[in-house]
Amino acid sequence: MSATGTLHGVGLGPGDPELLTVKAVKAVQSAPVIAWFCKKGRRGHARTIVDGWLKPERIEAPLVYPVTVEIPFADPEYNNSLAAFYAGAAETLAAHLEAGRDVALLCEGDPLFYGSFMHLYVRLKDRFRVSIVPGVTGMSGCWTAAGAPITWGDDILTVLPGTLPREQLAARLAATDAAVVMKLGRNFPKVRAALAEAGLLERAIYVERGAMADEKVMRLADKIDDEAPYFSIILVPGQGRRP
Amino acid sequence: MSATGTLHGVGLGPGDPELLTVKAVKAVQSAPVIAWFCKKGRRGHARTIVDGWLKPERIEAPLVYPVTVEIPFADPEYNNSLAAFYAGAAETLAAHLEAGRDVALLCEGDPLFYGSFMHLYVRLKDRFRVSIVPGVTGMSGCWTAAGAPITWGDDILTVLPGTLPREQLAARLAATDAAVVMKLGRNFPKVRAALAEAGLLERAIYVERGAMADEKVMRLADKIDDEAPYFSIILVPGQGRRP
Repeated sequence: MSATGTLHGVGLGPGDPELLTVKAVKAVQSAPVIAWFCKKGRRGHARTIVDGWLKPERIEAPLVYPVTVEIPFADPEYNNSLAAFYAGAAETLAAHLEAGRDVALLCEGDPLFYGSFMHLYVRLKDRFRVSIVPGVTGMSGCWTAAGAPITWGDDILTVLPGTLPREQLAARLAATDAAVVMKLGRNFPKVRAALAEAGLLERAIYVERGAMADEKVMRLADKIDDEAPYFSIILVPGQGRRP
Repeated sequence: MSATGTLHGVGLGPGDPELLTVKAVKAVQSAPVIAWFCKKGRRGHARTIVDGWLKPERIEAPLVYPVTVEIPFADPEYNNSLAAFYAGAAETLAAHLEAGRDVALLCEGDPLFYGSFMHLYVRLKDRFRVSIVPGVTGMSGCWTAAGAPITWGDDILTVLPGTLPREQLAARLAATDAAVVMKLGRNFPKVRAALAEAGLLERAIYVERGAMADEKVMRLADKIDDEAPYFSIILVPGQGRRP
């Protein structure tokens, strides 16, 4: 009788609720089911961002990660556990979609840029209608917080995960015009060493929680401790053509 | 007596008026002066995007480029002409700001990512308050139009301007996990040759006017002609960790 629902992958932007797009606000307000990824025991950052936008009547479907940093990536157990989780989360959403209910899956930043959404997208896109709302990326929130134009003219931008080995990071950093290094956390001391090796310590900017209430921006050279949360980024702004 | 105005650099996103952020809509509706860059004889894409959002009472300040593609970048005349234009445009906005009027400078995509805004920002930021509203990038609009997750897990993303020499493009493309090639236009045949040389022709996606009314998406391998407008992009999606 009833048609199946649509899965909306909704980019929420970097953290400020006003950085949702108009299209994202509409998707979040019109879908009867709101889903998001979170860690065990946490409410989830994505859910917090949309707090002021949600309509009272809605079904909430938190998708709680089984593992995060406890098991190393290289361990096959990490992969198996996550694969089982994504399969289960996909079926949770599929049940709503089968019942004709649209689902808004909340995505921090942009859904297709290092997003967990993508793991459900590939599992559901051939079974249901999917609509994706792009969002402002976390890195964009960070360079805005820093007031730092990231690329000029013909600059090449390289986006690097802090998980890479130091030698590889240093080589990549030395070979690009502008860079963004993400996924700092425990990788921070290694990333800083790689930037020093590439001669970029003076140009680098450290941004913590860009576009969030407690954002912090400083020259990397001024940061003396080794602590960096997950929501932190290092920027190396380009120096390209500036008429 | 009166305080000076604030310059708002407002990211408009990739083209769909609903992809303005809530913050961008507010900035565009509250500033008494709306400014934007455009080519001679054209209304300007940025101005068109905000058409439905503008309040009736406002001052419009189009900033009309003196040159675009007529003079090659390498010619010092190109640089001189643009520098004079940016200096003049900055003074146009400064006059409004001095008079206490806030100015919303419209920026396609994100203001600090290859944006013309940056040239006025560096000229005005020490004289006036500046507030920047980040936006969804054009490339994000393109990978959303293609339904193509661009980066997974620890993928490295490289953003390349199509203006680079073919050998350099091919080498960069071969050494990255995911890529976005912008500024196609007349560079398109060279960029396609570089992708072929890097063995990426089959993975590449061509997107024209992503997130605009007349968007076009196709496998690059299926594109037989050599025509590519400025608002076109080539994507090479990453193939990283997918549990």
